[in-house]
Amino acid sequence: MKRILVLHGPNLNLLGVREPAVYGKETLAEIDARLVQEGARLGVTVDTFQSNHEGALIDRLHDARGTADGIVLNPGGLTHTSISLRDAVSAIEIPVIEVHLSNTFAREPFRQDDRIAPVCRGVIVGLGSTGYVLALEALAGLVGE
Amino acid sequence: MKRILVLHGPNLNLLGVREPAVYGKETLAEIDARLVQEGARLGVTVDTFQSNHEGALIDRLHDARGTADGIVLNPGGLTHTSISLRDAVSAIEIPVIEVHLSNTFAREPFRQDDRIAPVCRGVIVGLGSTGYVLALEALAGLVGE
Amino acid sequence: MKRILVLHGPNLNLLGVREPAVYGKETLAEIDARLVQEGARLGVTVDTFQSNHEGALIDRLHDARGTADGIVLNPGGLTHTSISLRDAVSAIEIPVIEVHLSNTFAREPFRQDDRIAPVCRGVIVGLGSTGYVLALEALAGLVGE
Amino acid sequence: MKRILVLHGPNLNLLGVREPAVYGKETLAEIDARLVQEGARLGVTVDTFQSNHEGALIDRLHDARGTADGIVLNPGGLTHTSISLRDAVSAIEIPVIEVHLSNTFAREPFRQDDRIAPVCRGVIVGLGSTGYVLALEALAGLVGE
Amino acid sequence: MKRILVLHGPNLNLLGVREPAVYGKETLAEIDARLVQEGARLGVTVDTFQSNHEGALIDRLHDARGTADGIVLNPGGLTHTSISLRDAVSAIEIPVIEVHLSNTFAREPFRQDDRIAPVCRGVIVGLGSTGYVLALEALAGLVGE
Amino acid sequence: MKRILVLHGPNLNLLGVREPAVYGKETLAEIDARLVQEGARLGVTVDTFQSNHEGALIDRLHDARGTADGIVLNPGGLTHTSISLRDAVSAIEIPVIEVHLSNTFAREPFRQDDRIAPVCRGVIVGLGSTGYVLALEALAGLVGE
Amino acid sequence: MKRILVLHGPNLNLLGVREPAVYGKETLAEIDARLVQEGARLGVTVDTFQSNHEGALIDRLHDARGTADGIVLNPGGLTHTSISLRDAVSAIEIPVIEVHLSNTFAREPFRQDDRIAPVCRGVIVGLGSTGYVLALEALAGLVGE
Amino acid sequence: MKRILVLHGPNLNLLGVREPAVYGKETLAEIDARLVQEGARLGVTVDTFQSNHEGALIDRLHDARGTADGIVLNPGGLTHTSISLRDAVSAIEIPVIEVHLSNTFAREPFRQDDRIAPVCRGVIVGLGSTGYVLALEALAGLVGE
Amino acid sequence: MKRILVLHGPNLNLLGVREPAVYGKETLAEIDARLVQEGARLGVTVDTFQSNHEGALIDRLHDARGTADGIVLNPGGLTHTSISLRDAVSAIEIPVIEVHLSNTFAREPFRQDDRIAPVCRGVIVGLGSTGYVLALEALAGLVGE
Amino acid sequence: MKRILVLHGPNLNLLGVREPAVYGKETLAEIDARLVQEGARLGVTVDTFQSNHEGALIDRLHDARGTADGIVLNPGGLTHTSISLRDAVSAIEIPVIEVHLSNTFAREPFRQDDRIAPVCRGVIVGLGSTGYVLALEALAGLVGE
Amino acid sequence: MKRILVLHGPNLNLLGVREPAVYGKETLAEIDARLVQEGARLGVTVDTFQSNHEGALIDRLHDARGTADGIVLNPGGLTHTSISLRDAVSAIEIPVIEVHLSNTFAREPFRQDDRIAPVCRGVIVGLGSTGYVLALEALAGLVGE
Amino acid sequence: MKRILVLHGPNLNLLGVREPAVYGKETLAEIDARLVQEGARLGVTVDTFQSNHEGALIDRLHDARGTADGIVLNPGGLTHTSISLRDAVSAIEIPVIEVHLSNTFAREPFRQDDRIAPVCRGVIVGLGSTGYVLALEALAGLVGE
Repeated sequence: MKRILVLHGPNLNLLGVREPAVYGKETLAEIDARLVQEGARLGVTVDTFQSNHEGALIDRLHDARGTADGIVLNPGGLTHTSISLRDAVSAIEIPVIEVHLSNTFAREPFRQDDRIAPVCRGVIVGLGSTGYVLALEALAGLVGE
Repeated sequence: MKRILVLHGPNLNLLGVREPAVYGKETLAEIDARLVQEGARLGVTVDTFQSNHEGALIDRLHDARGTADGIVLNPGGLTHTSISLRDAVSAIEIPVIEVHLSNTFAREPFRQDDRIAPVCRGVIVGLGSTGYVLALEALAGLVGE
Repeated sequence: MKRILVLHGPNLNLLGVREPAVYGKETLAEIDARLVQEGARLGVTVDTFQSNHEGALIDRLHDARGTADGIVLNPGGLTHTSISLRDAVSAIEIPVIEVHLSNTFAREPFRQDDRIAPVCRGVIVGLGSTGYVLALEALAGLVGE
Repeated sequence: MKRILVLHGPNLNLLGVREPAVYGKETLAEIDARLVQEGARLGVTVDTFQSNHEGALIDRLHDARGTADGIVLNPGGLTHTSISLRDAVSAIEIPVIEVHLSNTFAREPFRQDDRIAPVCRGVIVGLGSTGYVLALEALAGLVGE
Repeated sequence: MKRILVLHGPNLNLLGVREPAVYGKETLAEIDARLVQEGARLGVTVDTFQSNHEGALIDRLHDARGTADGIVLNPGGLTHTSISLRDAVSAIEIPVIEVHLSNTFAREPFRQDDRIAPVCRGVIVGLGSTGYVLALEALAGLVGE
Repeated sequence: MKRILVLHGPNLNLLGVREPAVYGKETLAEIDARLVQEGARLGVTVDTFQSNHEGALIDRLHDARGTADGIVLNPGGLTHTSISLRDAVSAIEIPVIEVHLSNTFAREPFRQDDRIAPVCRGVIVGLGSTGYVLALEALAGLVGE
Repeated sequence: MKRILVLHGPNLNLLGVREPAVYGKETLAEIDARLVQEGARLGVTVDTFQSNHEGALIDRLHDARGTADGIVLNPGGLTHTSISLRDAVSAIEIPVIEVHLSNTFAREPFRQDDRIAPVCRGVIVGLGSTGYVLALEALAGLVGE
Repeated sequence: MKRILVLHGPNLNLLGVREPAVYGKETLAEIDARLVQEGARLGVTVDTFQSNHEGALIDRLHDARGTADGIVLNPGGLTHTSISLRDAVSAIEIPVIEVHLSNTFAREPFRQDDRIAPVCRGVIVGLGSTGYVLALEALAGLVGE
Repeated sequence: MKRILVLHGPNLNLLGVREPAVYGKETLAEIDARLVQEGARLGVTVDTFQSNHEGALIDRLHDARGTADGIVLNPGGLTHTSISLRDAVSAIEIPVIEVHLSNTFAREPFRQDDRIAPVCRGVIVGLGSTGYVLALEALAGLVGE
Repeated sequence: MKRILVLHGPNLNLLGVREPAVYGKETLAEIDARLVQEGARLGVTVDTFQSNHEGALIDRLHDARGTADGIVLNPGGLTHTSISLRDAVSAIEIPVIEVHLSNTFAREPFRQDDRIAPVCRGVIVGLGSTGYVLALEALAGLVGE
Repeated sequence: MKRILVLHGPNLNLLGVREPAVYGKETLAEIDARLVQEGARLGVTVDTFQSNHEGALIDRLHDARGTADGIVLNPGGLTHTSISLRDAVSAIEIPVIEVHLSNTFAREPFRQDDRIAPVCRGVIVGLGSTGYVLALEALAGLVGE
Repeated sequence: MKRILVLHGPNLNLLGVREPAVYGKETLAEIDARLVQEGARLGVTVDTFQSNHEGALIDRLHDARGTADGIVLNPGGLTHTSISLRDAVSAIEIPVIEVHLSNTFAREPFRQDDRIAPVCRGVIVGLGSTGYVLALEALAGLVGE
């Protein structure tokens, strides 16, 4: 059975609490539960991890070598600045789909610069937690190939 | 029954022919057929349209008022330049999801500027023709709400 | 009797419908009717044309040679991008006044770049449909000279 | 009876003398006289003021609170630099129409940046002294509403 | 016998009429006739097409697949903005030489940006209608290889 | 007894009147009175001055040599443009603390450029009229050293 | 009794040791002790925390929800780069005042860009450790409201 | 006898006092006296004027029409920002030589932008008060032609 | 008989040796021989010169006054930086056509800036050594006029 | 005996595994062993440390005060973004030599910006693991002085 | 007796011939003769040198160490690009005054960037060959000190 | 025996004389002698060459084909501007290591742009003349492979 890792970056632990008008009312636990369930439907196992530490996210990406077949990554605010995270994604050679809950294109200018996307397989933005499910679905298809 | 319009911009009529390494081997007709089929599965009707004319795409977006409940839009090269297309999208007040077959983030600098995305509901890039299916799925969810 | 051509660019056919808070409640037909009437008062004939196609607007500008003495032009979203429209305006050697309904200076950064204005006689922005009437009045004065 | 204030910024006192090829042959006194006359026709009183001092223009804008119902403002060279003048315009909450005699869009790059326009109701450029008359007309309509 | 397509973009129909100091006195019909004649001398057939519509030019480029062995393209004002035209040129995999009548390097800053040239075989600028003949000659050599 | 000069730049005379949502409801006279009172508490005399004229503010800064031991300066809109004011501050060699009532960092891009701050001792922004009091307190400490 | 959290970012643990000409001779422990004492005077409890880890600072900001009424934040070098820290500040909805010991405006160009300030209540720079005391005083006033 | 006007901009009244390492030890009165004396030697009368007010400098430039044959202008900090001063210089059609005491090229980046120089006859920088004398000499030659 | 000078800039002596994939396999001597031969066909004499020294190229351009009627210039890497070479071209008032072997538009960003082209009659790029022949042909036509 | 600390930043733990074409086939353990050995030859002790956490690297740099006489630092992706790491390097006043395995100058534009180098003693790039040895050699010379 | 070296850069050998409307009608020989004569009047010897070779100008600047007390330098087109020339000027520690015949501030944008001026004592532009005389005069004063 | 060429660019002949605080006290002859000696130790012959002429350096690089196995290059001020030198380096296909004596990263902004480095094997900066020795050592290793 294929294994998908879902990685959430800084501040995503506050989902449902932080600016619900922008990020929605679901909590991260609820989203993670839904993803595990959807994974079951799609025939993949789903593992989830959240950290506010760039280093911890990089460590987790490294650990994915050999333990995950695909990765859903929401890098949060690190999206726009972290070259180290980008280097980790391109180093591990596992397909990664980047997801953003809000439509970052419609937000501040500094959110228009995406350091991670060029080394990902694909990107899904603005579709709320449904974006995670779609990414899972796409990865299930990709890794099943 | 909800109606989804799928709009393809300039050069997408060459799909399957043009640079298959970048855009895949499926033809546009094959993709459109697949979308109609997926629509049936999701309980929505799917209408498709392709043009190399910016004006024709704008006209078609205007006509969508009253005839479509959601739109999947791949603006092709107009993505990076057309303010008129953007104004059309924001004028019609129908949810639009922008789709790109290739990962535009990994391509030329001039493809990093997206004029349309800020007025769309969401954006899906880099997932090939699967991206259209995911967009359809997301819209089916949205317009069914 | 002098002849004035009024050209409306992309999306202006949606006037009165599209974002009335930004563009006002009058429809394009109402504005055109008012301009014909004001033309009569000023002693000029008024011809109007709208298209969402850049090429059609250029064709119409070319046709104006010999059939119009002055032009009121609202290029819509093409204002900020179309060098072809600019070249058409400077090629035909008929006085053109550019008009925008909303105050483009108070809007998005990409609307601050005006490709057409440098080759026009004058520009009127932010005064709603009154801006068209003022342009007509100014052209009536200019072409009567 | 509604009151309109016409404010002329730096160097406009030299009108008719300074570079007539760019700014026309009418003197400022002639323009002001014409505006008073046009005001009478439109049923508004017209007051005029010119200064080469940014501070004096700001003081005069402040004094307009309670003594003017609309303002025609040609900020001259301050257009492109004065944030203080802009703040004064937005502070006084009286409709202001900015006017430029020459087509600033067709001039030096540093004249493309307009600090004042975003807080004005509208802008009229390139139509010579007729631009002042059109602004007066538009304001007469606005303040009569 | 090899076939060369000559494509003229927006406003080139006004050649001989529009700003002759910049673009010369020959009409487009005269240039096209000369190219057909030169083609005969070089042993290639020459087909010509002009449009002010970006979409029509793209359609014509697509149609060239299978009907032309080389293309001379003067994209007019679209040179500096049209990514769709560029994508069409790179999609069709036929050698294209871009031609400009005037020396665009000596003109406005916005004409310094050329979207099409990077996907062309070569570029010839500033040599008037002779540039078309030279391009024809170069293509005749290339496609004869 | 140490002497502190409080200088208010353009438009600050409208405090309490101008956009109270941004700048608060207190009038300048009330703030000045509060500062004199706080000065008494801190053992310093407080002198206040407001002008909409850059030149008058520079003259007043020059006069401070020998008559003031510290200066609180709110340069208003001149903050972002006036090199002359900056030169005056650095010429007089008296410690200056710049104060802004609103959080300029959260406002328009052109307010992010601060010409004066690099030659001041410190800067306090966004804390309303309390910012003036804190600056006074800091200066009282500094000049008492 | 209201509770104030004082957060010190990277390298501030070296205060008193690191470049004393720029940052002063007081150690962080001395500053913290002084802040606790000033807090007592102002009737607020003061808690302090320093870390060189962006993630630890974000975690601490999240923990402040429910345990602090106001925050004094010196983000050190993260000021100019960390969007994650900014997102944390805006997520927690507690008033934050940013403090810098040195006058960052007078330093390197890359220190002119402040990512955090736009989501803070206010900013105090250049006043050494007194800046912390003033921030505490301002927050004591704010949270006592 | 030809008449030369010497105009000194903001902060130049502090010469000899302000940052003598940058601007030298001579006072403005001493420089003016020296220029009157040099003028006598060169056979021209020399009039001098200093103001910290942009408006006053513009007024004085306007007054120079008919009363001066050449102008030496040190615009101080206005050099880098004042379009109004520039417009005044170009409006009066009297030869102007711009002078700076210090080598502005070796100073802050914002001093590299010179708004006034393009409309002057020449510019002399970095030669201290000798620069004024050289400008006087050059003007005496020019106006004597 | 008209005389054409062909000037080759830095590194062109390595043609045929250096990166043949980019610049072709012909040596410079072969190209020069071909140009002399083509010149004979066109009825012009052809003189050729190569140097890696900017100064030597400028000297040779100066010497062309009176000894050449037209110039073909490939400035090599100096194209993108040498204002001195540009000034030499515009000083000598002889028609110059710039030639590049490779399509510089498709190469590094720093090769997009062409200092020389704006003062040339025309530019031919990307057509290999054929570009030199076409330039010769164009010049033969121009100088024969 | 002098002590050298070798610090490896994010993703360097994957050396030998990650993109060997770019970074080489040696593992980090092999490089570290080689450095210890080379240190022995040069008469210095070598301590090594790797972390994917910016904070951990800063902590380690701080700890180097008193325990190391020189530092070899490969900041990985933090090179281009981390002002905190830069501040740590300049705070500790120990000579640091920055090393990169690949030639960062030949890579993506965002790798051209080096935040750390300006506060280092020297920089060695593109020489693979030999670069570390050379840095060690240079430091051994420096700290032995 | 003090010795002044006058250095002329690329293309200045064409003075009197090249674009006389921009650079005047005097030949370089005439200007040099005039400078020798003026030098005699001022009590300094004058040596002159012109080259179109950057390297030759640098060599000559190096040779000036020990043979010249002051230098007048017109770097021609190298002004805007040559860091090597700049380094030579700052290396030799002899006062240099930069001179330009035309008002470079009023010319093309690329002439606004002056690489040499920041390391010169002063700069004189726009005063034709008189500028050289004034520079000589200033240097005579400086080196006589 | 392998042969290494050491190339020194403009102004390096002044080493030991020019700004010793920046570039050290050793003369170029001393450095060259040391490199010959080190070469002997490493088993390679060392040839050295210095010129202030870009063209001479390019000629020398060309001559290295067949006569050198590796090159140490300090391009001096040409580093930041010379595309011709860069093209020469990439044309000759011999491994080149770029060396700078001072830490260019810590100097003026215009020294941050390195035109040569992207086509070199490696770069060593800021380590004084030791940098040359390290480069020699690295090349000796490389060419011995």
